[in-house]
Amino acid sequence: MEREEDVKVGAQKFSERHALGTGAGGDKDYREAPAAPLFEGGELKSWSFYRAGIAEFVATFLFLYITILTVMGVNRSPNKCSSVGIQGIAWAFGGMIFALVYCTAGISGGHINPAVTFGLFLARKLSLTRAVFYIVMQCLGAICGAAVVKGFEGNARYQLFKGGANFVSHGYTKGDGLGAEIVGTFLLVYTVFSATDAKRNARDSHVPILAPLPIGFAVFLVHLATIPITGTGINPARSLGAAIVYNRDHAWDHHWIFWVGPFTGAALAALYHQIVIRAIPFKTRG
Amino acid sequence: MEREEDVKVGAQKFSERHALGTGAGGDKDYREAPAAPLFEGGELKSWSFYRAGIAEFVATFLFLYITILTVMGVNRSPNKCSSVGIQGIAWAFGGMIFALVYCTAGISGGHINPAVTFGLFLARKLSLTRAVFYIVMQCLGAICGAAVVKGFEGNARYQLFKGGANFVSHGYTKGDGLGAEIVGTFLLVYTVFSATDAKRNARDSHVPILAPLPIGFAVFLVHLATIPITGTGINPARSLGAAIVYNRDHAWDHHWIFWVGPFTGAALAALYHQIVIRAIPFKTRG
Amino acid sequence: MEREEDVKVGAQKFSERHALGTGAGGDKDYREAPAAPLFEGGELKSWSFYRAGIAEFVATFLFLYITILTVMGVNRSPNKCSSVGIQGIAWAFGGMIFALVYCTAGISGGHINPAVTFGLFLARKLSLTRAVFYIVMQCLGAICGAAVVKGFEGNARYQLFKGGANFVSHGYTKGDGLGAEIVGTFLLVYTVFSATDAKRNARDSHVPILAPLPIGFAVFLVHLATIPITGTGINPARSLGAAIVYNRDHAWDHHWIFWVGPFTGAALAALYHQIVIRAIPFKTRG
Amino acid sequence: MEREEDVKVGAQKFSERHALGTGAGGDKDYREAPAAPLFEGGELKSWSFYRAGIAEFVATFLFLYITILTVMGVNRSPNKCSSVGIQGIAWAFGGMIFALVYCTAGISGGHINPAVTFGLFLARKLSLTRAVFYIVMQCLGAICGAAVVKGFEGNARYQLFKGGANFVSHGYTKGDGLGAEIVGTFLLVYTVFSATDAKRNARDSHVPILAPLPIGFAVFLVHLATIPITGTGINPARSLGAAIVYNRDHAWDHHWIFWVGPFTGAALAALYHQIVIRAIPFKTRG
Repeated sequence: MEREEDVKVGAQKFSERHALGTGAGGDKDYREAPAAPLFEGGELKSWSFYRAGIAEFVATFLFLYITILTVMGVNRSPNKCSSVGIQGIAWAFGGMIFALVYCTAGISGGHINPAVTFGLFLARKLSLTRAVFYIVMQCLGAICGAAVVKGFEGNARYQLFKGGANFVSHGYTKGDGLGAEIVGTFLLVYTVFSATDAKRNARDSHVPILAPLPIGFAVFLVHLATIPITGTGINPARSLGAAIVYNRDHAWDHHWIFWVGPFTGAALAALYHQIVIRAIPFKTRG
Repeated sequence: MEREEDVKVGAQKFSERHALGTGAGGDKDYREAPAAPLFEGGELKSWSFYRAGIAEFVATFLFLYITILTVMGVNRSPNKCSSVGIQGIAWAFGGMIFALVYCTAGISGGHINPAVTFGLFLARKLSLTRAVFYIVMQCLGAICGAAVVKGFEGNARYQLFKGGANFVSHGYTKGDGLGAEIVGTFLLVYTVFSATDAKRNARDSHVPILAPLPIGFAVFLVHLATIPITGTGINPARSLGAAIVYNRDHAWDHHWIFWVGPFTGAALAALYHQIVIRAIPFKTRG
Repeated sequence: MEREEDVKVGAQKFSERHALGTGAGGDKDYREAPAAPLFEGGELKSWSFYRAGIAEFVATFLFLYITILTVMGVNRSPNKCSSVGIQGIAWAFGGMIFALVYCTAGISGGHINPAVTFGLFLARKLSLTRAVFYIVMQCLGAICGAAVVKGFEGNARYQLFKGGANFVSHGYTKGDGLGAEIVGTFLLVYTVFSATDAKRNARDSHVPILAPLPIGFAVFLVHLATIPITGTGINPARSLGAAIVYNRDHAWDHHWIFWVGPFTGAALAALYHQIVIRAIPFKTRG
Repeated sequence: MEREEDVKVGAQKFSERHALGTGAGGDKDYREAPAAPLFEGGELKSWSFYRAGIAEFVATFLFLYITILTVMGVNRSPNKCSSVGIQGIAWAFGGMIFALVYCTAGISGGHINPAVTFGLFLARKLSLTRAVFYIVMQCLGAICGAAVVKGFEGNARYQLFKGGANFVSHGYTKGDGLGAEIVGTFLLVYTVFSATDAKRNARDSHVPILAPLPIGFAVFLVHLATIPITGTGINPARSLGAAIVYNRDHAWDHHWIFWVGPFTGAALAALYHQIVIRAIPFKTRG
């Protein structure tokens, strides 16, 4: 097995020394998972493969259900003060990702987001077969989650309050919206990479244990910042589910932004993590 | 002892590989508790059985006291902005569950909710005797907690501001309310199952350590979404305590929803966990 | 050394079995600290004794500084919506306790509150000498923290916005206020006992690691519920510091409530923990 | 290697005994990193040195991007209630520090703030070369982050809503503003020192694992308290980035406060930690 080491241009290995939370001992070994093959025939015969897909479906269903219902509650309220407010919407999105990553990380990896699946696929952490299967299940889950909300709210109210669909708001260009989606998804996927880095996991005790919390917070924080711009996508399944159930022209006009933006942001985060943080091109062999 | 293994239709055991937070080593053994018997005579002679019941009583008392008092404070405020707001109510419910699960998990398992007790009973994690004892103690604790709030607020004010009782709000059908209770409790009990799964506990270090946090967040999140629909029950003891102390006809008319909904949601979560996640029907023997 | 065991009226040791977060293995040994003597001469010659007192002073100073400044910011705001709001005040109190317990737990035990010191003293976790020293340092820190806020705000504004002093609000009796202080402090000190229980620490991995978080949340939650009643004390040093720096008659009229209430609540929590949870009277010897 | 011990004027070693979260065993050894040299030639030839600088740049870029965008969203909103509110701004600052410390702690130490770098430099935790490099990269990242926000918002709107720049608010003196920056940064850097203390890390399991959370909370709490006074700096890179991109006279008039204040606060925290908490002058040798 090939072990990655710190790239040493000089003799210095500083970065490990003053890391937060290393304390006693810090030179434990760690095992890097080998790159996933593009196609893995055996996978398709494994129950855990289908179980993972079902878990992604259920998680994305619950994600859309809770978040779109929260959005509807805020939008229905004549005075935002008598609802949980825009901040409450941000908590709903971030909090659900925290809870769902906690619950499903051990089953499917806890993606709940095609952009996360895409970023991890680029880093060869899962096969193409699995990536496509996850993305399909996430989109189906999202559509069902939004549909249940529409069932509760009724068609008229759902259309009136826009069903949590993503648009670029008045006062911003499509370029602003695309940029906001790219940087927002970069933050999310960069956090996911940091949380799943085998090397950091072995060295810093806070990395594996807190993992779902900063991932949830990343989603919360991007919502705090970009709800006024696009309503915040950074998750193509969430945008697709809301758009399909809402199904108005203006929801579809901007829809490409919520696929191109997140996938671009995820690719940049994968690049940043592999080139800069893990320094793959400069990797020495042990 | 019978060890459960991953069901392998093929040779592939992917799901464990890219789990968040496994890092170094991931093939530790774990011990599955055997199914609890329906009746366990010895239990009734054990001090820890009664201590657990007292702990459930005290926890549910504190839960209702803090949450109903927060609801009253928000409802009394002429302007929601000069109170902690609806979002503050959601924090009170979710935060209390976090703190109380943290405190009582080691004493009684930290249920504080008949729906959780029912779900864990269906999965045979506790005996029928214990389940019934817990539910009785939870309901008594809830009644006392709400009664103390009524004592502080006075009868007139308590009636005026509806004492935190659960109803289906104007604009929603009883079916909507029932559905909201089912999906909400599903999310909560699914999180509880994920947090207490012996296999996940052994493999992912974040599972046992963070446990009370996602459980509290699940409660918080369901409140963010469904306070506008039913005030959010997902806990029959909470709904019963508030209804008994408030004691008006319209509190009782919808009351069945807050038992049938949570118990159905808990049963579905138990089913999902046992059939899909743990794949009991397909279990191989080791 | 005397090891405490589970009291077994019968043969059953259920409570440990389905505890959240035990998972693999759960029968580790743990060491119970012996009861602290009332007077411990050596302590007074130890630098760590004085260091602990200084740490309590600095922590309580920072606690009052941040919280009273937050209260002033909210009270000054003509419209609560353009401030952090009442919920923000609750976060300031709870969040500070979380951060300060995290920072000072290893130095002084992280009390920052005479009621906590009193409760732990009753359980014989620290000597009388140390308890008195801590309480004096906490009160001095609180006075200085409130004084700095008064320095920033100026006397006129400080008086106008009441300097964060605790009163029983209009519409509640003194009995309500006392009751609210008792139950609120019970919740806080019960959480502290749960977090510091050596037995739970050894069995459940979430207990020692999360410890400062539920303690901070307990403070946050009590503020959500009882700010409308008393402004929430549950910390005599906080109430004394604010009262001395504000120094008006109506601040002093109710002041006894914020000592009697918290000390009573702390005593009840100590009693509950020792009698019910730890079952001291029934303890068997191993 | 020189091991630091508890200074024992007497025989008593109390402070370790009732520490929160020690539980079983507490006398593990720990390794104190030696003081960093002022100049470390080898560092400049190490890839990990440059990687750390890039990580600080990216983290500070993301920090300013999310936080200034959140500030703009709140300021643009005609009614604070239809935005995430001032509390949402505090969450954006604190939450980003939590997420970014989590992600970058293992790469660069996760400073994202020249005041933190300065404090850790004073405690000789990093070389002067590295400290200067980090501060330059943080400032560049901050400027870029604010510039992207200006790009999204457009020049007119950015100027109108003041671009998140720091000033001393009307009604406070420059002395108040300076004092608020000093105490606020003291709280932050004191938390950082507590989180990175090798001795505490070895003894209390909550210290290394939770580390990024109280650091993020410290930032959140200082914002709750001092947004009404200065908008809250406690991070010279954040203040510089916002000032350069906003670039109006009144942003520059007070600018020195946001360097002198944080550096003074950081120096006091370093002094407090080394003199009182670690008792360096009294250190015995083992």
